[in-house]
Formats: sequence, structure tokens, C-alpha cells
Amino acid sequence: MPYVNIKITREGATAEQKAELIRRSTQMLSEVLGKNPATTVVIIEEVETDNWGIAGESVTVRRQRGS
Amino acid sequence: MPYVNIKITREGATAEQKAELIRRSTQMLSEVLGKNPATTVVIIEEVETDNWGIAGESVTVRRQRGS
Amino acid sequence: MPYVNIKITREGATAEQKAELIRRSTQMLSEVLGKNPATTVVIIEEVETDNWGIAGESVTVRRQRGS
Amino acid sequence: MPYVNIKITREGATAEQKAELIRRSTQMLSEVLGKNPATTVVIIEEVETDNWGIAGESVTVRRQRGS
Amino acid sequence: MPYVNIKITREGATAEQKAELIRRSTQMLSEVLGKNPATTVVIIEEVETDNWGIAGESVTVRRQRGS
Amino acid sequence: MPYVNIKITREGATAEQKAELIRRSTQMLSEVLGKNPATTVVIIEEVETDNWGIAGESVTVRRQRGS
Repeated sequence: MPYVNIKITREGATAEQKAELIRRSTQMLSEVLGKNPATTVVIIEEVETDNWGIAGESVTVRRQRGS
Repeated sequence: MPYVNIKITREGATAEQKAELIRRSTQMLSEVLGKNPATTVVIIEEVETDNWGIAGESVTVRRQRGS
Repeated sequence: MPYVNIKITREGATAEQKAELIRRSTQMLSEVLGKNPATTVVIIEEVETDNWGIAGESVTVRRQRGS
Repeated sequence: MPYVNIKITREGATAEQKAELIRRSTQMLSEVLGKNPATTVVIIEEVETDNWGIAGESVTVRRQRGS
Repeated sequence: MPYVNIKITREGATAEQKAELIRRSTQMLSEVLGKNPATTVVIIEEVETDNWGIAGESVTVRRQRGS
Repeated sequence: MPYVNIKITREGATAEQKAELIRRSTQMLSEVLGKNPATTVVIIEEVETDNWGIAGESVTVRRQRGS
């Protein structure tokens, strides 16, 4: 029954990679806490780099600087 | 003053259906807990089927299989 | 498969009232969008009045003023 | 290390305005609570006006009425 | 830089189990998407069983019935 | 009408500090985007240090090491 919400910047994650995040998150909750995979929900949100900030500036600006 | 966040897969919910979710959520909080409708916020988020997982696989894959 | 997150101030909602929110939210998603109740998740979060702000001040302060 | 999530309606916020929200949120956490800016995360989510409800109706409807 | 939010019912997860969820979530984002572990944030929220609903009823009620 | 959610570790933030976060977040949205303070909602969530991970380990462990 757990709920997992993963937020990442929108920078080209493929459907296969997202399927892998879903598979592994569900397996993790089952192995670590014995949670039932059938009702484990995983939601991935992809956020524009303009809308994600770290250390006081947007990821867009950081990428331009090469960080 | 309550806050309601509804996440659904992006599969064609219409503006009318979303307005109905907003109307009913607000009414529910008023009737059950006496909350003031004027400051009740409802936010609906529609998530791509590749980005929503249940039972360890994406909704895209489940829909393809006919689940 | 929808996910509903309801945040309210912690001011004495009873288990019965919370069960009613769960029941009605699930029914709403089924009636409005045809969503399967079996996989509809509802999570209620109760937030201290010091930690909830509206109009620039905490609910604690507003309650003291009688708002 | 704090995490700030700002949700606004999608009505034309510019990259500059969003950068300003990131900058000021990070500074606020540093000044008020002494939090380290280097690990402060800010995520801005822009929500369609059909998907945002207040007082039981969508922002789309409120905008049409001139509210 | 990813952000992972895991919500589970409050039913006795230990500090060790939660540390394992943090370790594995961070490793997953690194292995699947090449994300930098140094800025990966994981937040675990434990929710009372009265406040978690599935299939229209609270987990408290389901546990009493033996589900 | 914006919604701001601030998550911090539970390490003794006072009611006054939280009131300051509410005041400044609301002012920020008003000044940067012209948002109406009357309907700006701010919710602060305080998370146990066992439940907050960064760089693959919990804040509890990092604090013990003096990080």
C-alpha cells in the first residue's frame, strides 16, 4: 500500500528507465518492509529545469554554467 | 482552508469532470468537517501513463495487456 | 488507481469523520471518472495550526483573533 | 536541506520570475532557520487553470467571470 | 538532485529499515538515471492507519477485519 | 491562490520562526507574481531526522558524524 513519488528534472528519461524506477521502488518496499506490491503506487513527476532550484538558482542556469 | 490534491492518469478527463471533482471535494470538506468552502483549494494533477506505476509496472504496460 | 491527498489542520477530526472522507473521495472518483475503488488511495494529513498559514499568518494566530 | 514546493496556476510566469522565487525561497530558509543554501531544493509546479479549484469552482470559470 | 517521497502507514518501521529505504532509493536514482547521490533527497512520511484509505475504507478497519 | 509547502527536519523551529516563513512566503508570491495574499496557503511539515535522507544516509546519522 505504500506510495512513492519521485520528482526528477525533465531531461529525457525514457519509458524504459521510468519502468525500471517503478519496478525497483516496488521491489524495495516489498523487500525492506514486506509491503504488498499489488497496491504499491509509484508516481514519477518530471519538472522543467527552469522550475527546479538548488543552491538558490535554477537547474537551467546551472546547466549553462556547466555545473 | 483544507487542501485537496487529486492525482489521476492523463487519459482524457474533461474540464467538466474536473470541475465536478472540484465541486464535490469542496462540498465534502464542508459537510463532513464544517470547513469553509471559500478557502478550500483543490489541485488536480494528470500524470502520463508511463509515469504511473502500480504493482511494479507502468499503467502504459497494463493498458497494453488489457488490465 | 487515483491518489487523493487531503491536508487539514489538526483540530480534532475523529476517526469516523476521516473514514467518511475516505469513503466519499473514493466514491467520487468512481462516479465522476469511473476509477476503480479497489486501487484508489486516500491519505489524510493533519497539520498543526502553527504550521498552516493563510493570508500571511498562521491559523493559530487567526484562531486567537477569532477569525 | 529544506525542500520547498510552490504550486501556482500556469498563467505565464517567466523564467526570470521563477528564478526569483528560487532565489528568495532559498534565502528565506537561510535567514530564518539557518539552513544551508547548497542543499535547499525548490520545485515550482504550474497547474492548468482547469485543474485548480478554489471556493468550489475552477480558476478558469472564475477568470471568465472576472474574479 | 532527485527528490523521493515515500509514504507508508505508521506500523513500526525501524530506523534501520528507513535508512535502508534512503540508501536504496538514492542508489536506484544513481544507477538508473545517473543522478548525483550527493543531492538526492529522500523523505519518508509515516501516516496513521486511520488516515490512510484504500478501496474506500481506512487501513485501521481493514486490519481489524484481517485484510 | 498559490500553495507553498515547506518541508524541514524537526529540529526545534519555533512558532515565531514558522510564522516568519509564512509571512515571507506570502509576501514573496505577492511581490514576484502579484498573487493575492488572502488566498495564499503555506504548509510547513517537520520531518524526523530518521526520515530525511540526503546523499544516501539519514540526517540522524549525518548529525552524529558532525556533518
